[in-house]
Amino acid sequence: MTDDALVIFTPSGKRGRFALGTPVLQAARQLGVDLDSVCGGRGICSKCQITPSYGEFPKHGVTVTDDALSEWNEVEARYKRIRGMIDGRRLGCQARVMGDVVIDVPPESQVHKQVIRKSAADRAIEMDPATRLLYVEVDEPDMHEPTGDFERLARALKEQWQIEGIAAELSLMRRLQPALRKGLWKVTVALHKGNHDTRYRLLDIWPGYYEGRILGLAIDLGSTTIAAHLCDLRDGSVLASAGVMNPQIRFGEDLMSRVSYAMMNPGGDQEMTQAVRTALNALIQSISAEAKVDPRAIYELVFVCNPVMHHLLLGIDPVELGQAPFALATSGSLSFDARQLDLDTVNTAARVYVLPCIAGHVGADCAAVALSEQPDKSKDTVLIVDVGTNAELLLGNETRVLACSSPTGPAFEGAQISSGQRAAPGAIERVEIDPVTKEPRFRVIGSDLWSDDPGFAAATAQTGISGICGSGIIEAVAEMRMAGIVDAGGLIGSADQVGTARCEPEGRTHAYVLHDGSASGGPKILVTQADIRAIQLAKAALYAGARLLMDEMGIDHVDRVTLAGAFGAHISPKHAMVLGMIPDAPLEKVTSAGNAAGTGARIALCNVGARDAIEDTVRHIHKVETAIEPRFQEHFVNASAIPHAIDAFPNLMREVTLPEVSFNTSGGEGRRRRR
Amino acid sequence: MTDDALVIFTPSGKRGRFALGTPVLQAARQLGVDLDSVCGGRGICSKCQITPSYGEFPKHGVTVTDDALSEWNEVEARYKRIRGMIDGRRLGCQARVMGDVVIDVPPESQVHKQVIRKSAADRAIEMDPATRLLYVEVDEPDMHEPTGDFERLARALKEQWQIEGIAAELSLMRRLQPALRKGLWKVTVALHKGNHDTRYRLLDIWPGYYEGRILGLAIDLGSTTIAAHLCDLRDGSVLASAGVMNPQIRFGEDLMSRVSYAMMNPGGDQEMTQAVRTALNALIQSISAEAKVDPRAIYELVFVCNPVMHHLLLGIDPVELGQAPFALATSGSLSFDARQLDLDTVNTAARVYVLPCIAGHVGADCAAVALSEQPDKSKDTVLIVDVGTNAELLLGNETRVLACSSPTGPAFEGAQISSGQRAAPGAIERVEIDPVTKEPRFRVIGSDLWSDDPGFAAATAQTGISGICGSGIIEAVAEMRMAGIVDAGGLIGSADQVGTARCEPEGRTHAYVLHDGSASGGPKILVTQADIRAIQLAKAALYAGARLLMDEMGIDHVDRVTLAGAFGAHISPKHAMVLGMIPDAPLEKVTSAGNAAGTGARIALCNVGARDAIEDTVRHIHKVETAIEPRFQEHFVNASAIPHAIDAFPNLMREVTLPEVSFNTSGGEGRRRRR
Repeated sequence: MTDDALVIFTPSGKRGRFALGTPVLQAARQLGVDLDSVCGGRGICSKCQITPSYGEFPKHGVTVTDDALSEWNEVEARYKRIRGMIDGRRLGCQARVMGDVVIDVPPESQVHKQVIRKSAADRAIEMDPATRLLYVEVDEPDMHEPTGDFERLARALKEQWQIEGIAAELSLMRRLQPALRKGLWKVTVALHKGNHDTRYRLLDIWPGYYEGRILGLAIDLGSTTIAAHLCDLRDGSVLASAGVMNPQIRFGEDLMSRVSYAMMNPGGDQEMTQAVRTALNALIQSISAEAKVDPRAIYELVFVCNPVMHHLLLGIDPVELGQAPFALATSGSLSFDARQLDLDTVNTAARVYVLPCIAGHVGADCAAVALSEQPDKSKDTVLIVDVGTNAELLLGNETRVLACSSPTGPAFEGAQISSGQRAAPGAIERVEIDPVTKEPRFRVIGSDLWSDDPGFAAATAQTGISGICGSGIIEAVAEMRMAGIVDAGGLIGSADQVGTARCEPEGRTHAYVLHDGSASGGPKILVTQADIRAIQLAKAALYAGARLLMDEMGIDHVDRVTLAGAFGAHISPKHAMVLGMIPDAPLEKVTSAGNAAGTGARIALCNVGARDAIEDTVRHIHKVETAIEPRFQEHFVNASAIPHAIDAFPNLMREVTLPEVSFNTSGGEGRRRRR
Repeated sequence: MTDDALVIFTPSGKRGRFALGTPVLQAARQLGVDLDSVCGGRGICSKCQITPSYGEFPKHGVTVTDDALSEWNEVEARYKRIRGMIDGRRLGCQARVMGDVVIDVPPESQVHKQVIRKSAADRAIEMDPATRLLYVEVDEPDMHEPTGDFERLARALKEQWQIEGIAAELSLMRRLQPALRKGLWKVTVALHKGNHDTRYRLLDIWPGYYEGRILGLAIDLGSTTIAAHLCDLRDGSVLASAGVMNPQIRFGEDLMSRVSYAMMNPGGDQEMTQAVRTALNALIQSISAEAKVDPRAIYELVFVCNPVMHHLLLGIDPVELGQAPFALATSGSLSFDARQLDLDTVNTAARVYVLPCIAGHVGADCAAVALSEQPDKSKDTVLIVDVGTNAELLLGNETRVLACSSPTGPAFEGAQISSGQRAAPGAIERVEIDPVTKEPRFRVIGSDLWSDDPGFAAATAQTGISGICGSGIIEAVAEMRMAGIVDAGGLIGSADQVGTARCEPEGRTHAYVLHDGSASGGPKILVTQADIRAIQLAKAALYAGARLLMDEMGIDHVDRVTLAGAFGAHISPKHAMVLGMIPDAPLEKVTSAGNAAGTGARIALCNVGARDAIEDTVRHIHKVETAIEPRFQEHFVNASAIPHAIDAFPNLMREVTLPEVSFNTSGGEGRRRRR
């Protein structure tokens, strides 16, 4: 019998020999195995649960006998009795190595656990938050060695947690002495170290072992919508997600009208700043109520937003962003106290991290998309299109990443469309048009039924059919093109030309009746010639931006396309390509990343190292300014056809057939051919 | 003729050869000569003025011809015309080296200039402030290389001033873009880097070259008085000094009664915190008004104070300081925003530095005394006695420094004395008693005349003679002892025993009539037996503290004694020693350092390196806790006589003669002998 034993940890495979009697937690730490502990091995926190395996392990070359670990002890029994523990589990701080043993560290006992996102396409987030809870035992004061309570706390953190350098605000200093005495010199502290900090910040302190959670909020502050995810900072789980309208809409629907408001109204920028901060406080309260948590448990917030929202959030006049050279006040990442944003609903010590901006038109939201989608790690060349009120594009691969923004305007969001509306219940979101009968069917938000399904009328009775949202108008125009109702130039044919009474004259042009609810007092929903023109302008701008990046990259095609943005999640790749919104690619290579900016914010919230990573990535992204590139105008002019040139879309043409029709506005018979 | 020339700078003696045409400022920088410049050599700030010397310099081995520097240029002419410049001076950035030259850098052109304090005994302060003004030219924004204005400012500071790493609050970010544009991309910034900071903080920004001053405030926050010096952070000059009463007095005269107030009254500590912060804001406004400056120009404040004042200033409940083990919430130095102290009168970005505390009874004020008096640099062993409401003592030399506090109580400040009062006009501050006639003469604050000088009555008519202050009671008791009115045990003799009608019976003891103003409606000022006892207790505590430190140091005598504290400035060394307040030392070796704590605060304000130095010193000071040392009680009991043992004062006995009298309280004839 030897006086040491082999300990093998799974899933890491790390192994080493340890003296008999060594606690499993200590063995794990010495091997660098990722085994959690908040209380530092004192049998309090139970975060270090492990599962020993017994029997023969030919792969590892060991036999684990029943007495490979010390016996189940009182601490473990008490914990299991009071709090419950899965059978077969042990506490790593209590179980001691008594013989060769194979020990599994279950995911929930790993500090750097990976949080799997719900959708299959989603990647995992490795937990490495900037804010941590630590339980610590502090020496009592000694008149012979007079040091402050804070200095003894700092020393204990150094000795027990290898944490060097802590700082605290006066408000925390005030709470230190009562907490230490109430906890009999044992306290739990919340410590924060941002990616640019040289010292840890004491954010909170509790007497004894603190059972509660510490939370973080990832916020995607859009021009139209503010979306937030409330996350547990220990395990990364999303406790609640919520979105509210950005109240700045009353100062202007799109970014430039808000910049104009600031320009024309003294103090207008401060009004907008106050509006968004008030909305944030309300959002924080409502999302906390939904998750049934106290918003004071929120210690960190991460913001992503476009440059104008960025400045308005921070209280900086955005006027410079409305005119060349579109100079940002600051482009780097920012870390500061939430108090500076008047966020008085969260913990008073809460910290904010704002991702860096890429350029005056390409914001922290685009940086967050880059963090989520990682074009800089991609072997093949990927085009990432984040379509919101403005479109931002990233193109690149592991050798080089380019970025630009494209002035698409709000047509893709249903604005400036005759029957357009925001994506809300009652809005038409999906459209199909029969190429023979030219009859449409559609779906509205709030129901899974198509308009020709039985029960559709009943299912939509509550919401009605009120208009057409962004994804709906894109599908409608693309379907109209595929059904031969619209020609490649974007003209809607007359009833005679197309062969359906749904094409009605409207002034000197025509409109297509998608739905006529007037008999039952509802609206008549048309796609007008002006609507087609608005979509053509928007898609030409988007395509020209992509094309400009491809020129800069020196490529003629992209390997894959990722559609990002809340809106991107709803665009059908086929319809986007029929319109010519995005360059040609195999349809199976056009995927949606959902709200990638929000995901990026959540990654930065849960992993402080990711902040360094994205800051470094942003420094290396090459920015292309569409406003000063003559080629952008050129591409834009050439891209108004639907799609702009069929031979530019070989992949698409394998999937769809586009009728070769051509109408003119004189009302005469158009040519009709099928390709 | 060579193409370079020898340049010799005085007073540094630094020398080097430079290509003809090199600006003097550039030569100075390359040699590491301390020549100031705010504008970086652009002919704007005129801080780099130098005086060339012409003729033969055998000592340096050079001949300086009249054309050794380039000709007087337009920039210099314009500056001299508009702002004035001493004849013979040149601007170092304009004058170019054209031949061998000797150049003097006048004190006002040195960055690290030394500020000579007024008193001859005072040391110089080397200027190295944490906050500096820098003029910088920032690149304009470029759409092809989109970076934020802040990032370009940071780059310019790096390139033009070798300043790396700056950070700014959102409120400064907001002001950045207008300032840069108004200044046509030239701005002056105030940058701050505290001794624990890794980055510079942007405290303020002005378009173009800023002509104004940046100021700092050194504050000695005492239990009774708040004293402040308003300093120019560029040259260290004191623009104004002011003192106000600490309004916390209404919560308790001495420290322990304030701690009791906090203990007994919920929220009492917060009341006191608010009171002192309100008083500080008022003081800031009045001292700024006196100096005719805007308090918003104050960017830094340094505080020194005892531990209880320290906690009450910071908003920390001082209750732990009222009971063993006298644990400080924090003992280390602190740096934070002035906003955290609700100091809304100074600049919104102003920073605060608080010196470290030594122990629960030995505060940042004692650390400031150590910074000012530097016992740790002394070759001989020095005892430093800071007498205020509490007495703090430092004993040591370059090998070791000890510290303790001594519970003297407020008797030395005139409190708890029958006719005692604060040092204010009308208070008796100096006393002499004729050893033969037993008649006193005295001086009162507000007049330089002695009471037996002609015109005294007229000179004091305004103030009257209202009582006796701390220094007065010490002199009175010592003089009474020297005149044989009081015996070594502290008893006042009767009229018969002493031989003067000024000794009046008072209950079972006697009192000495120092002044009887009752005829003219004024008070009768007595020194009572109870007064003598109060002074005996206080001096015994002070002496016992000193003796305890000497025991710990293993020494029987000290080489010199420094009396510090506003009160220390007024104590006569001889009288202090007759009382036995301080250990025996040659009288010429007992000196006053004036308000050494205030001087220490000013040093820390003007020199950021001094902050590191005192923090290091404090770490190495060994603290002796009088409350738990049995020897302290022993020394205290043995030290009540006046002085406690004549043979312990050989140096004193060479200077004074003490009558060997002994009285008893029975009223019978005492023994009277002359030594």
